[in-house]
Formats: sequence, structure tokens, C-alpha cells
Amino acid sequence: MQEYTYIMLLERPVIAINLKTYSESLGENAIEIAKAIEQIQTDQTPKYNPIIAPQAVDIRLLAKQTKINIFAQHAEAFDYGRNTGYNIVKSMKDAGAKGLIINHSEHKIELNKIEDVITAAKKEKMYVICCADTINQARAVACFEPDFVAIEPPELIGTDTSIAKEDPDLIKKIVKKIRFIQYNARILIGAGIKTRNDVDICVKNGANGVLLASGVVKAKNISAVLFELFG
Amino acid sequence: MQEYTYIMLLERPVIAINLKTYSESLGENAIEIAKAIEQIQTDQTPKYNPIIAPQAVDIRLLAKQTKINIFAQHAEAFDYGRNTGYNIVKSMKDAGAKGLIINHSEHKIELNKIEDVITAAKKEKMYVICCADTINQARAVACFEPDFVAIEPPELIGTDTSIAKEDPDLIKKIVKKIRFIQYNARILIGAGIKTRNDVDICVKNGANGVLLASGVVKAKNISAVLFELFG
Amino acid sequence: MQEYTYIMLLERPVIAINLKTYSESLGENAIEIAKAIEQIQTDQTPKYNPIIAPQAVDIRLLAKQTKINIFAQHAEAFDYGRNTGYNIVKSMKDAGAKGLIINHSEHKIELNKIEDVITAAKKEKMYVICCADTINQARAVACFEPDFVAIEPPELIGTDTSIAKEDPDLIKKIVKKIRFIQYNARILIGAGIKTRNDVDICVKNGANGVLLASGVVKAKNISAVLFELFG
Amino acid sequence: MQEYTYIMLLERPVIAINLKTYSESLGENAIEIAKAIEQIQTDQTPKYNPIIAPQAVDIRLLAKQTKINIFAQHAEAFDYGRNTGYNIVKSMKDAGAKGLIINHSEHKIELNKIEDVITAAKKEKMYVICCADTINQARAVACFEPDFVAIEPPELIGTDTSIAKEDPDLIKKIVKKIRFIQYNARILIGAGIKTRNDVDICVKNGANGVLLASGVVKAKNISAVLFELFG
Repeated sequence: MQEYTYIMLLERPVIAINLKTYSESLGENAIEIAKAIEQIQTDQTPKYNPIIAPQAVDIRLLAKQTKINIFAQHAEAFDYGRNTGYNIVKSMKDAGAKGLIINHSEHKIELNKIEDVITAAKKEKMYVICCADTINQARAVACFEPDFVAIEPPELIGTDTSIAKEDPDLIKKIVKKIRFIQYNARILIGAGIKTRNDVDICVKNGANGVLLASGVVKAKNISAVLFELFG
Repeated sequence: MQEYTYIMLLERPVIAINLKTYSESLGENAIEIAKAIEQIQTDQTPKYNPIIAPQAVDIRLLAKQTKINIFAQHAEAFDYGRNTGYNIVKSMKDAGAKGLIINHSEHKIELNKIEDVITAAKKEKMYVICCADTINQARAVACFEPDFVAIEPPELIGTDTSIAKEDPDLIKKIVKKIRFIQYNARILIGAGIKTRNDVDICVKNGANGVLLASGVVKAKNISAVLFELFG
Repeated sequence: MQEYTYIMLLERPVIAINLKTYSESLGENAIEIAKAIEQIQTDQTPKYNPIIAPQAVDIRLLAKQTKINIFAQHAEAFDYGRNTGYNIVKSMKDAGAKGLIINHSEHKIELNKIEDVITAAKKEKMYVICCADTINQARAVACFEPDFVAIEPPELIGTDTSIAKEDPDLIKKIVKKIRFIQYNARILIGAGIKTRNDVDICVKNGANGVLLASGVVKAKNISAVLFELFG
Repeated sequence: MQEYTYIMLLERPVIAINLKTYSESLGENAIEIAKAIEQIQTDQTPKYNPIIAPQAVDIRLLAKQTKINIFAQHAEAFDYGRNTGYNIVKSMKDAGAKGLIINHSEHKIELNKIEDVITAAKKEKMYVICCADTINQARAVACFEPDFVAIEPPELIGTDTSIAKEDPDLIKKIVKKIRFIQYNARILIGAGIKTRNDVDICVKNGANGVLLASGVVKAKNISAVLFELFG
């Protein structure tokens, strides 16, 4: 299996899988998902670079058992200290996370915290996927120059409607509008993405990858979905 | 006394006074501050257009007794309904507010709420002053095209250091960076502004006005300060 | 019309009306509701003592125009000062509120804040209605000895099911369990209460009154409902 | 080394150590602290039963490497599902946690959430240490019958003042007042506890143990402190 290096993370299109707090992606199940991807990607130069975002309790073990880049699903910018019960950037890194998802539509944060967490992550040389519901929110978070801006139109979340199939021109428009703010922004498309064809359309239209969740984790046959996505 | 029309609000530089929850600017005291400004500004075309942001309990009475534009200090985007104990945009308007301050450094809100409140306010034809701690936060909120972007470098809040005197070039830089996002952004400078000279420097360097609080409300002689600012 | 004195507030059963953020109970509408109750209660010793909880923007005007006790729908324990956009206990009092509703199911607060707000209100000689979803939450808030504990079983909110008609013994049980913690607790029953008969059943079974909202405010004929409740 | 069974957790006095987000108690350091306690407690019937509350990222590994009971520092009552970035009760259990700390003074939660998390934990047969700042807050949380009520007078947190030495009668009073609500409450004393003598005084005066943090984790010689506490 190839090494998933930092350079890959930034130079190839990305398929990021948010494991959320589903039971199907907890503990051993998270490891199985990672292992399955590794076995599929035997090629030295796979087209899509995988990212997996497990629950905080799974980061340390997963980071030991896979070379796939692990991202935390959220973190606070707090320094080490008296922050009982919080997941902080520095501890996520210590556990093996290479990056963070922040401001997910299920875990919205204040504007100033977005800046603080991105700043804290950069100090730790960690990558940040900053989520946004709308084009204007995506432009706003691009002002802080996260490594990735993920846009999930909320009207598409959890539906069978794929932005890729329905409206590929919208992807072009999203990409253009965000890059007007941050010319080198790496943009992930979320919500409604399920098939490899969807991913290919996103990338063909200028995006740098996709952010998936239930399409993988809640699939009847996870292996088959992973094989389609990464094969 | 002149009428403070909407056009004035947008066409002339602004001195906005945040009354916060100080006792010195509550109830009768708020009315006195408004009346004092009206008496000072006998000119039909005053240089600076005043905005006063009282506590929610004072909006309705103040709006009846002054022609100065009243802004709420915060509001939720919620529609009429089951929101016990919240101050909502529509009720602020009903009470007589012409606009809203949002995302003040003492009342930070989630990124998506910033967009939601600005959208709700525009539907009600209310103006929004959206605050930001840093240049990048100011650029981010400019993506939602609020009527005013107020920037208060937190290191200057409550100090005697005036950005106007210390570093007027910083104002030029702030203005330029925000207008790159929103070319017609109206920009208010906050923190450390106390004198008319400070205000003049801000406007001379490209800002559209200032956002003040303790410099007025906690002054030993409020009338004297108002006279200096608006005279 | 009689004076609504403090003693009445504590010595007679209460019908408290939460006006929430409905348009039907905003501004002039709030005043109409208060006036209607005053006109109905011509008796010097009405059976039920009314409380009205308007939006923050309506407190000051309403307090001037009615003798009915006005309660805020929420407030923070903060002292006067730098709390932009918050409704604080002291300002609610200044505006004319005699008391506060806190921890409403639409505006939940942290346990320590419940204690802080009750303490702050007592210092201001304001009354507190502290809400609870369940019997155990009601017992918990009774530990802080608020003037009233209001219990609204969430499974009944907004339904046509009246606890009074369905299960009057449950009222007895609720009252007994709360008074085990605070022997002199005044207990208000909420959710599903709509008719005078409901109120009478609550009081007959040991409660000290009721907390109403949509049953009054969203009624097709508000006057008729008020006449039935207070007549 | 003995097995730390559930029965022990409830039948013997407890010394619970909150590792917070200190670097000195992260990852390998957390394991070292656990191992040190195990080596000290060679006795089959140690006087004090240890609990360790690591950061979420350390629970799974620590649970595999120690028999000491592991508690999470916080958790949400949410079921498995779409809760990106949250630590949920069920996942904490899956990772090996035997219990939870909730409502710590650094991580306050709403009253209804306290009830929800305790209910969720009981379903998972997990233990809950519910924290409180004051006697009345402790009485309030006792209404939900958590396994442990921990009281940390905030005026003593992080100071060198030990409630045990300063005012042992206060411990008796605290214990009595909480047990009036929950007759079989297990009560932990926090804030200012540093020495074995402090712990002994707490237990002698009726408490069921202590909740420690910086006294252990930030000690110059952690081993020495652990030896004194558990030896």
C-alpha cells in the first residue's frame, strides 16, 4: 500500500468520509472501513485521496492502524489546561489526527471560533475542512484560508438528490465564487454525493473532492460502496 | 431639528453609540442621550449621522421620543411564534428599531446565524451593523453584505489607545481589505475611539464612521462628549 | 379595578399568560390583552390573580398602562455593564417587570444560571417562575426556592390533552413531590390547560395556578377565552 | 493486582482524578498515572477505589491497559446517528468508559440535559458523577439520583485552601443536606483537596470520596502524590 503523505492530501482530489456518531462506523467498524479502503487502493497513485473522520474515542487507535489521513470531527482552539470534557486541537493531534472538520451543519460554531480553530490548527500543522451551508457562508470561511472549504447545501443533505447529477453548473459557480475570495481554495462538495460518477462530476467541474457520510456508512453494503468510490 | 431619513443613514458618516447594559444609559438616561444629540444637531445637514442602540426594553419608548435611528443590540432570525424570552428581528422592528447590531464581541453568534439574521433583517428593510474582532472576520461578514461592518480590534476595547491616533494607516488597510470583498461596504471603526478628532481621522482614512460605547456612556460629562462628537 | 398587590401574587391562585413571540400578543395586542383582563376583573377579590409575560420590548409600555403584574420571559443574572444585547434582571425591573419566567422549555438554561438568576431576582425583590419539563426537574429547581415552580410535561405541550381532565391525580402527585423539597412551593401547571374548568381542577388538586400561552394568544376569540378564565 | 469491580465502585470510598486537558495527563502520561496507581494498590482490599477521567481520545486505549474504572469527562445523551463532533454516552461506553463526569464547572450543561444524560447513562449501566458548585446545586442534581454528586465550592477551586482542613463541619453539613434529597447519595468533595489526610477527613465526616485534578496532574512529583493518596 502507498503512503498517504501530506503532499497527496493537498495535490490530489479528496474523498472525505465523516463517520459521525453512527454505530456502523464506531470502533472496530471504523477500522474495517479504513482497512477496506487501503486494500482497494493498491495502486501507488490512486485518483482520490481518502480522509476518514472518526469519533474522538476512535482517533488514537485508528491512527495507529491505518495510513489513511484521520481528521477529528470538531475541536476547540483551547490550549492545554482546564477544559474538562472538551476535545482540543492539540490533543487531537497528539492522538494522531492530521486534520479537523469544523463548523459542520450538525455542529455550528461562532464566527470568531472558526478563525481561532483554524489559527490553532495551522500552528499544529494540522489541516482544516471548514464546512458551510451556503455559497456565502463558504465565501466567508474562505476568508480564514482553511485547507478545505466544504459546502453542503442543506436542502440536499440526507436526500437522494445529487448536486452532481442535478446541476453540475452549480458546482462551477460555487467553485468560482469561493475562489474569488481565496484564489487557491480547495473545495469539497457535500450532500447528495453517493456514487463514483457523482465524485467524478464534482472534480470535473472544478471541485477538489467530496465530503460523504451516510452514503457510505449507512449503505447496505459498505465494501461495495467503498470499492466503487476508491476502485 | 432635521429628520433622520434612511438615505442619511447610508449617505453620511455615522456615529453609532452602543448603550450596552449600562445603568447610565438605561430608560430615562437613554432618552436624555437621544434628546441631547437632537439639540446639538440643529443643523439641517449634520456631518455625522447618529445611531443609538439601547437595551431591548427601551426601544419602543425611545423610538417614539426621538427621530434618531434606533438599532437593537442583538436579535434572532426566528419568525413570530414559540420563542419564549428571545428578542426577534420582527419584534424589534415593530418596536421601532430601524436596524440591528449583531455579532458584537460581547454577543458572538454562529456563522450561519449571521447570514440568517442579515437575511431576516433585509426582508424587514432593517439595517444591520455586523461586528468583527479582526480584519479577516470583517472580510468574512462582508460576504453577507450587511449595511455596515464594524471592526473592533479586541486588543483596543476598553483601553485608552485610539486606533485613529496610533495607526491611521491601519484604517486605510482595513477599509481596503474589506472593500475587496464587498466593494461598497460601509465600515465602522470601534475600540478606542473617544474624540471628534478620532472620528474625523477614521472618516478621512476611508471609514464610514465609528461605533462607540463606554467613551460616551461612562464619560463623567456625557453632554460634553456628545457636544464634541456631534457639535 | 382593584390593585394587584404583591400579597395577591403570593396568596391567591395565579393564571400566568406567556405571550411568547406571537404577533397576536405583540405591542398594542399585549396592551389589549391586559386591558381586557382588567375590565373582566371588576371584583375587588378576584379568584385568580393574573400575570402577563410580554416580550422584552413591550415590558416598559405595558407596565405603565396596566396594574397587572408583568413578568419578563427570560433574563440574565449579569450586573449592569458590558453585556451587549442581553436582557438582564436589573433592566427588566427598571422597565417595570415584577418578576421573571426562567428555564422555559423554549429557553433552557444551565443549572448554575438558574441559581444565579433566582439569587439576582431575590436581590431585586422580583418574583421568579422557574419552569421544568418533568417532576424531577421541578424538584431540582425547587431546591433554589423560586417563588413559583411551573411544570409543563413536554408530551402535553401544544396538544389538546389537558392534564386536568386526563389525570387529576397526577397533579396531586406532582404537588406532593415538589413540596417534599420545598414545603411551601407555589406550583403552576402548564401544557394542555385551556378552560376555566381545567384551572379549577388544577387548583382543587393542590396547585397554585397555571401557566398558559397558545390557549389564550392563539385563540380565535381571545376576549372570550379571557372572559371564561377570569370571569 | 485486584479487580476493580462495580461493587467496589459503590461500596468503598472513591478518589476520582479528573485529567482535564492537561498535557501532563494526555496519552502515555494518562497510562502512566493509571499504571502507577495499580502498582501502589497491591492490597486486595484497598481503602480507596480509584477512578480516572481521561480525555475522550484516551478512553479506549486506557480502558484496554488498566483495570481502574475509566470515566469520560462529559457526554451528550444523543443516540447513535447524525451528531458530528459530539462525544455521546453510547460511544463512551463502547470505548470502555464505565461512567461519566457531567456538569463540571468547566463544562456546565442545561438542567434538562443533566436529567437526559443521567437517564441515558443508566440505560447503558454507566455510572455518573454529577458536579455542582454549591450546596443547593448539589441538592438539585441529587433529584436525578446520579451515582455520585460531586460538590466543588468554586471559591476553593485552584487554591491551596482545603475544605477538609478549614471547615470539616461544612462537609457534614453538605452531606446531610444532600442526603435529605437523596437518602443514599454518594458524595464526592472537590476543590482544595490535595493530601491523603484531606481525603481521610472528608470520608470521616460522611463523604464518599473526593474529586481531584490539578493536585495530582500538576504536581511536581505525580508518583509521590499518588503514593500518598493510594498507599
